[in-house]
Amino acid sequence: MDAAVAKKPKLCRFFFPLEKQLMLFPILILLINQASKMNAEDGVMEELASEKEAEESHRQDSVNLLTFILLLTLTILTIWLFKHRRVRFLHETGLAMIYGLLVGVILRYGIPATSYHKKTPPSCSLEEGPVSTLLLNVSGKFFEYTLKGEINSREIHNVEQNDMLRKVTFDPEVFFNILLPPIIFHAGYSLKKRHFFRNLGSIITYAFLGTAISCFVIGNLMYGVVKLMQFIGQLTNKFYYTDCLFFGAIVSATDPVTVLAIFNELHADVDLYALLFGESVMNDAVAIVLSSSIVAYQPAGASTHTFDATAFFKSVGVFLGIFSGSFAMGAITGVVTALVTKFTKLHCFPLLETALFFLMSWSTFLLAEACGFTGVVAVLFCGITQAHYTYNNLSEESTKRTKQLFEVLHFLAENFIFSYMGLALFTFQNHVFSPIFIAGAFLAIFIGRASNIYPLSFLLNLGRRHKIRGNLQHMMMFAGLRGAMAFALAIRDTATYARQMTFTTTLLIVFFTVWVFGGGTTPMLSWLHIRVGVDPDQDLQQCGDNFLLFQGDGTMPEVSKTKQESAWLFRLWYTFDHNYLKPMLTHSGPPLTTTLPSCCGPLARCFTSPQAYENHEQLRDDDSALILDDDDTAITAKGASSGGADAGGWGVNGKRSSSTTEEALEREMDQEFLSRSTRLVFPIEDHA
Amino acid sequence: MDAAVAKKPKLCRFFFPLEKQLMLFPILILLINQASKMNAEDGVMEELASEKEAEESHRQDSVNLLTFILLLTLTILTIWLFKHRRVRFLHETGLAMIYGLLVGVILRYGIPATSYHKKTPPSCSLEEGPVSTLLLNVSGKFFEYTLKGEINSREIHNVEQNDMLRKVTFDPEVFFNILLPPIIFHAGYSLKKRHFFRNLGSIITYAFLGTAISCFVIGNLMYGVVKLMQFIGQLTNKFYYTDCLFFGAIVSATDPVTVLAIFNELHADVDLYALLFGESVMNDAVAIVLSSSIVAYQPAGASTHTFDATAFFKSVGVFLGIFSGSFAMGAITGVVTALVTKFTKLHCFPLLETALFFLMSWSTFLLAEACGFTGVVAVLFCGITQAHYTYNNLSEESTKRTKQLFEVLHFLAENFIFSYMGLALFTFQNHVFSPIFIAGAFLAIFIGRASNIYPLSFLLNLGRRHKIRGNLQHMMMFAGLRGAMAFALAIRDTATYARQMTFTTTLLIVFFTVWVFGGGTTPMLSWLHIRVGVDPDQDLQQCGDNFLLFQGDGTMPEVSKTKQESAWLFRLWYTFDHNYLKPMLTHSGPPLTTTLPSCCGPLARCFTSPQAYENHEQLRDDDSALILDDDDTAITAKGASSGGADAGGWGVNGKRSSSTTEEALEREMDQEFLSRSTRLVFPIEDHA
Repeated sequence: MDAAVAKKPKLCRFFFPLEKQLMLFPILILLINQASKMNAEDGVMEELASEKEAEESHRQDSVNLLTFILLLTLTILTIWLFKHRRVRFLHETGLAMIYGLLVGVILRYGIPATSYHKKTPPSCSLEEGPVSTLLLNVSGKFFEYTLKGEINSREIHNVEQNDMLRKVTFDPEVFFNILLPPIIFHAGYSLKKRHFFRNLGSIITYAFLGTAISCFVIGNLMYGVVKLMQFIGQLTNKFYYTDCLFFGAIVSATDPVTVLAIFNELHADVDLYALLFGESVMNDAVAIVLSSSIVAYQPAGASTHTFDATAFFKSVGVFLGIFSGSFAMGAITGVVTALVTKFTKLHCFPLLETALFFLMSWSTFLLAEACGFTGVVAVLFCGITQAHYTYNNLSEESTKRTKQLFEVLHFLAENFIFSYMGLALFTFQNHVFSPIFIAGAFLAIFIGRASNIYPLSFLLNLGRRHKIRGNLQHMMMFAGLRGAMAFALAIRDTATYARQMTFTTTLLIVFFTVWVFGGGTTPMLSWLHIRVGVDPDQDLQQCGDNFLLFQGDGTMPEVSKTKQESAWLFRLWYTFDHNYLKPMLTHSGPPLTTTLPSCCGPLARCFTSPQAYENHEQLRDDDSALILDDDDTAITAKGASSGGADAGGWGVNGKRSSSTTEEALEREMDQEFLSRSTRLVFPIEDHA
Repeated sequence: MDAAVAKKPKLCRFFFPLEKQLMLFPILILLINQASKMNAEDGVMEELASEKEAEESHRQDSVNLLTFILLLTLTILTIWLFKHRRVRFLHETGLAMIYGLLVGVILRYGIPATSYHKKTPPSCSLEEGPVSTLLLNVSGKFFEYTLKGEINSREIHNVEQNDMLRKVTFDPEVFFNILLPPIIFHAGYSLKKRHFFRNLGSIITYAFLGTAISCFVIGNLMYGVVKLMQFIGQLTNKFYYTDCLFFGAIVSATDPVTVLAIFNELHADVDLYALLFGESVMNDAVAIVLSSSIVAYQPAGASTHTFDATAFFKSVGVFLGIFSGSFAMGAITGVVTALVTKFTKLHCFPLLETALFFLMSWSTFLLAEACGFTGVVAVLFCGITQAHYTYNNLSEESTKRTKQLFEVLHFLAENFIFSYMGLALFTFQNHVFSPIFIAGAFLAIFIGRASNIYPLSFLLNLGRRHKIRGNLQHMMMFAGLRGAMAFALAIRDTATYARQMTFTTTLLIVFFTVWVFGGGTTPMLSWLHIRVGVDPDQDLQQCGDNFLLFQGDGTMPEVSKTKQESAWLFRLWYTFDHNYLKPMLTHSGPPLTTTLPSCCGPLARCFTSPQAYENHEQLRDDDSALILDDDDTAITAKGASSGGADAGGWGVNGKRSSSTTEEALEREMDQEFLSRSTRLVFPIEDHA
């Protein structure tokens, strides 16, 4: 019985809707013979009644779904009003939660408990355990039933009173399998590549190491809290160490959607944006895999919950396996899509192209799930691959269409989740509010986030050319909002008391962080003196600029010294990507025939598109700016210093070394100068 | 027991996925106590086993869905190849069916029957009939089961052998509630308004009267066939008159998607296009409502299946009620969306606008279902309303986005249905192939279509200014393809023998008509001498043109005489729409302050947008051309006669009467002249 902890999530996997239709499981046929024979007339009456009931509940379901749609509509209209009036203290997600909350209160207290069915439960005997499909034999007619999941024995007694409340409860797996994928894919697909790749090292450090640190810090602190609660008699139910770690994993997934929206609007520091966005995207993936690894942690001897080295390393193995497998799945389908769009002339038919893109991206999810990996993680890496390669092969029409399609899906899914969260606070049946646990959790996430950001920033700054300054670190600390991912992970399993407490606490954390931290972003930005009103395209200049402004001239030599080492990983990747992957997967140059060794001649000719020969000289590549950036720091800095501290002015008389890649970029750079010169850089606004 | 005919569909309503999550129905708690107590260790093992099983089938489901996605991907790639090489004999839907068929054959014959569960069915006794939710008590743990539907007693014995085949079987309600709505909405949203409204009278006649005629002709003919089969002993199961009528209703829904795609590509006669498209869109709605009315036909005394006047009129009432209710729902949400988009400045945020549009359109479906009407029909009229009003209020960005969004959804849904159809021919478990019935059905649909088109065309030609000529009638007869709607209606209920036979026959009809009639469209067009290569914008000219070319000068006076009467319905609608509805719901028009009586002053001022005053003179309105068209027939004809039989040349020296609405259009017309002059009219191609 002890090993039953954390078993629920997999049983739940049965029940997500799109695949639900396919689920005609291997059947254990349960023949329930009617003890008393009904005559035919009774049967007809019975059937009519059950049909009426079915129709009634179908109607009720439509009403419920309609409620959510009206909630979203209301959110959209209010958000329009807010945007119209430039109100920034409340993001659409925060608003969606408030509306959800209001409807939840109405459903909970406003509507009298109605239950139109109060039949006495009949009983009969059965020798078998839970099966996926059940057949019910009623007077020769067979009815098929599918397993929905285990329900709590407490719930059974509540069922009749809380009809309405149970009705608005979605299957938890909907969030994970229907609503999260478009959100995560969109995040991957819209990563600002240039800034993302430039900060790749730091992002990976925060996302992997940082999330792990945060998870263990929070987990251990919460275990202390749990022990304390057990000591003072506040907690009598079981709450294992793995439950604490699980809680640590799910609240380590940050989702600063509110903060990022404001950054975007105010054009805040692009590197900070890249760090925060990149970290939040990647740590979602890490948190998912981490939480499944913790669930997979199964010490030898089902009844012990002590530390077991074998099980621990097995968990680490599970983590690495799931993560790399999901990554591979995402990358593979991305690459296949890129190849298909490259070698067909599909771009003449944007509709076909968009449909193909959509289907291939969705197939990533299914492929990963079919292979036992995590679909959501695969979808993330698929999105990044699609953005990096396939996007360049699409027709202009399709690039717009795909972006807009996923933008709409993302918007709807995200706001749906947040309004459901609001609703769930009042309609969820098994909340366990424990003040001590909640207070402990708030403290723990604060400490967890701090032990992620500050030590890692210190370590990163040792190697980074553009230091992550103190105010940026504080902002990253502040932007540790929790959102959709934490909720989806928490609601996935609410079978045990520990998990119910976890769910309730997570929900409160999401509310608090989204409203308080989200709403406080603008004041915080100005309090921390973080530059806003920066043109994203001016990042090359900014970096040198910031550096000059805040670090002073004294650190100049250090920068020149470390720039080579700090970028070696990126340089390696960039060269490989630019010389081999991009020419193979897209139409951009240089031709593979020139980069691959001559023994691969036929292969190279086969994969090189005719355009590659033409594109070779006029390479238009986002990443190329990074190489340029690395080599030109001195120039940029010099230019900036000639322009002084004025953010708007910088010299265009930079001298450049004449390496091959840079020559190709010179033209592009000049164009950028021209386009930049027309843009204004806003002064820092005072948001007091 | 007799009344059990046609009961299944409503029970099926339980099971469509998006709302499935909400379905925690009022519960009849069924406590099944385990007779033999298991110890805790056994429980854990059992749980582990059932979990493993769950995971295994989740994986299997992903594989199955993946199969469909790969099928669609393959279809897209092949279609691209076909379009690239200008192959026209096979449309994407036909191709999707072929691929589906191939996969169906592989699943059926290529994969050895695997069934990894062969447990002996335990039995126990129960006093109650089918309930929507079942609770299973296994050693203190409760498991929740939802009713999936009645299954045939024959199926139970097949279950273990046909695991794989059952797995790829979707819930029938998916088609009706998930896949059809985007298809139908897109049809409504993309109706070519000008040609649609000009032929409104004819379209309504064909769609309502024609579909009813077709339904009854086919129903009666099939009843004869059934009687014959019973007479010669080929049919021993029950097959009622209502089953025949039901069959008539579902195969009366035409879906000439293949034909219309070719028309679009070849720029065939626009009026023919409008008639066919309009008819097919509207008769889908009619067929749905007709079939539910037939199901609702319930003679007094459940065991008699004779004609009952009361029940008949009740059915007619049901038809009218559902139809007008659904129409009203669709129109209302369309109008609300139009008002919202008019009075907010949402068009500054295309994402919000698109999301709102999507949500409002979806809410139509739910609203109609919640009120007991038919969602699909409501969605159609919502689409038409959105296209007519809301579309004009959207930002340019959003008009593109919404069109493209629904285009992609429509494309995916349609091809999914067709590939599923191919698959279903081999994987569906309960096919009833009856050669006599099938042969009879093919004859019946031919006669049914003929008795729809020819008599109604004759009647319509009495009143129509632009006659529907013989060759157009033949083409309409030929274009009577059956598609997604017929399939979705047929698969909705396959509980009885009669319905299984209906389903099999419908499937074969769809296959035959899509492949043979669809493939034969291009030869048929040239064989019937139907003009192709017509610029859709040149319709004004064409009509006069066609008329001169084919009818001769002798009928001229008749045209001038009938034009007033024939258009009175349209004129009435146009005036009302132009003067009141458009100004109220969009930014166009004469200001309401000038059209409404002075007593409504405040209301008028409230609803009139500032732009209306400006737009008054520069009205840009699709329909306006129709009024012009009506009044200018003589001029157009004169112009055309001066240009002779040459399709490209027509006089621009037309004299116009100076009515108020026309003055406003003069400028627009001149612009059209200019734009037209640059376009070429292609000669009729020879597709031999």
